[in-house]
Amino acid sequence: MIYFISYDVSNPKRLNKVAKTLENFGIRIQFSFFECEMEREQLEELKSALLKIINKKEDSLRIYPLCQDCAAKTTSLGNGNIFIPKTFEIL
Amino acid sequence: MIYFISYDVSNPKRLNKVAKTLENFGIRIQFSFFECEMEREQLEELKSALLKIINKKEDSLRIYPLCQDCAAKTTSLGNGNIFIPKTFEIL
Repeated sequence: MIYFISYDVSNPKRLNKVAKTLENFGIRIQFSFFECEMEREQLEELKSALLKIINKKEDSLRIYPLCQDCAAKTTSLGNGNIFIPKTFEIL
Repeated sequence: MIYFISYDVSNPKRLNKVAKTLENFGIRIQFSFFECEMEREQLEELKSALLKIINKKEDSLRIYPLCQDCAAKTTSLGNGNIFIPKTFEIL
């Protein structure tokens, strides 16, 4: 299943940790917006990792599932570029 | 139908125009990420308005549809706050 994760993290250190964690699970579409294709177990693993990083009062993170049908209807305007970050395998 | 729109616009003036335009169509979830509930015609109206603003080479904008099922499964971590911007009616 595809999940979109967007976040608002005010503290730069936490912001970087959140991005680094998400890079292990998916592709950075925009500065604070990731696209992750994963199974339920991985999503739970990701959520618990993120919960250890964020400040629950200050930071906001949203996880949007995108079914096959919705994913197929996604469109882009402009260059449609996405960040090409380094992706890491979970060993 | 709910649509998520995320964008990467390098030029501050265009960035502001894109945000102002999107504020007429939905709610700002994060800095460059909007949630818009609209019909097909409004989506087309929005797309043509945005295409007049963005620089197709430099800027990137993505439109993700979210069906009822996916929308219902959206989760948030942390304060789950969303920006509460001024919303404008289209007269």
